[in-house]
Amino acid sequence: MRSLSLEARLAIRRGAYTGPTPGLAPGHVQGNLAVLPASFAPDFLRYCQLNPKPCPLIGMTEPGDWRIPALGADLDVRTDIPGYCLFRDGEPVADLRDLMGVWRGDLVAFVIGCSFSFEEALLEAQVPVRHIECGSNVPMYRSGIATTPAGPFGGPMVVSMRPMKPADAIRAIQVTSRFPGVHGAPVHFGDPEAIGIADIARPDFGDPVEIRAGEVPVFWACGVTPQSAIRAARPAIAITHKPGCMLVTDLRNAQLASF
Amino acid sequence: MRSLSLEARLAIRRGAYTGPTPGLAPGHVQGNLAVLPASFAPDFLRYCQLNPKPCPLIGMTEPGDWRIPALGADLDVRTDIPGYCLFRDGEPVADLRDLMGVWRGDLVAFVIGCSFSFEEALLEAQVPVRHIECGSNVPMYRSGIATTPAGPFGGPMVVSMRPMKPADAIRAIQVTSRFPGVHGAPVHFGDPEAIGIADIARPDFGDPVEIRAGEVPVFWACGVTPQSAIRAARPAIAITHKPGCMLVTDLRNAQLASF
Repeated sequence: MRSLSLEARLAIRRGAYTGPTPGLAPGHVQGNLAVLPASFAPDFLRYCQLNPKPCPLIGMTEPGDWRIPALGADLDVRTDIPGYCLFRDGEPVADLRDLMGVWRGDLVAFVIGCSFSFEEALLEAQVPVRHIECGSNVPMYRSGIATTPAGPFGGPMVVSMRPMKPADAIRAIQVTSRFPGVHGAPVHFGDPEAIGIADIARPDFGDPVEIRAGEVPVFWACGVTPQSAIRAARPAIAITHKPGCMLVTDLRNAQLASF
Repeated sequence: MRSLSLEARLAIRRGAYTGPTPGLAPGHVQGNLAVLPASFAPDFLRYCQLNPKPCPLIGMTEPGDWRIPALGADLDVRTDIPGYCLFRDGEPVADLRDLMGVWRGDLVAFVIGCSFSFEEALLEAQVPVRHIECGSNVPMYRSGIATTPAGPFGGPMVVSMRPMKPADAIRAIQVTSRFPGVHGAPVHFGDPEAIGIADIARPDFGDPVEIRAGEVPVFWACGVTPQSAIRAARPAIAITHKPGCMLVTDLRNAQLASF
């Protein structure tokens, strides 16, 4: 019997599923994708190592290879994501349905953990997550927290925000601390300006959410950070997943729990 | 060779040490004391079980016995604490140097975990603790959070407060979550009024501390809570330790860490 995750990848590959991936193959780890020329790979790998909270690397390919056996049987990074963004010289130039037309023998794919894994753990722990309740994308902000640069990669940390009551935030810190492979504990809570966010009502990515009386905004390092770093590095070609359209892996979220 | 903790208890017992116990026998668990008539013991035990965050029970005696072998070799709860408070009908009536004059065959002693254990872990994790830096007592407040009553025991949870930057508070939540036997994770952070504290500058016990710009108050359940519950229960006789003068046990703080 095929796993739910392989079923999901095959449905995406044959074009039968084209939407965002939250809710696909529950319990399975989904990942952010970053594809770069091999000449940029050592610096990007070092960038991930230096910035494990925004860039928790969970898998990568050999140059030119499209498989990552550690993340899934019969996994093809060129076809198994519902949508891709193509960057030329650091600028987004096109949305792609698959990478068959642009794949090259020198490309390396990196897969970076994603907050969907810890959000599942939050919901299991009965911690409400506002943007999920609203059916919207999590609000994300370019913060004033600088990442540690590596070669041409660098720039601000992008953070995601979830408003919570303090008691829920304490529980959320406990729950997400168990998942260092998917951003781990928050990096900040409370005053947005303390981390360089001028207007909490206007996220740089995703959708705004309401912060109710008695709630504080809680900020996690976000997997969109590497996209900022790629724009800074300006490689001739780069590819990422389209926001919300992640790579569904065979790993289980529970396998990423550290204790 | 005698352990540091036994040395400390023997020094206290012979009157060679009469001050507060922070810093005595580093690395060893210190405990809050509550002594009650055996007729109150079942309800108090249930009160601790129902309220594990303010009342994490780490040891108790048999009626009339003054020993707790699980907490220490040659430990005598009647003599091994630098100062005691005597309560009659729930009201404090005297400070005592030891319990030799008031001990009775029906008394039961309870030892409850104390924040000194997690404060040691915070300092090791490089999380600054303001009242330790200031050499003062931690500020404590009668909160609006009700404890779960058991028989005559009940009343508000007393909380201790440590101001921290959010990033330090996140780390402090992780560190103290490992120590459920000594109050565990905080119960609240941020707005004091949300837990019924009207004036953060005026603690009900201990000393006020400065909350600096960019810091938030972080609140932990406090081992003074059982003293409030004893006042509510009004037993004919009750005894507690004098604030800051704890029972030094042979347990190591590291033994209380849950992972």
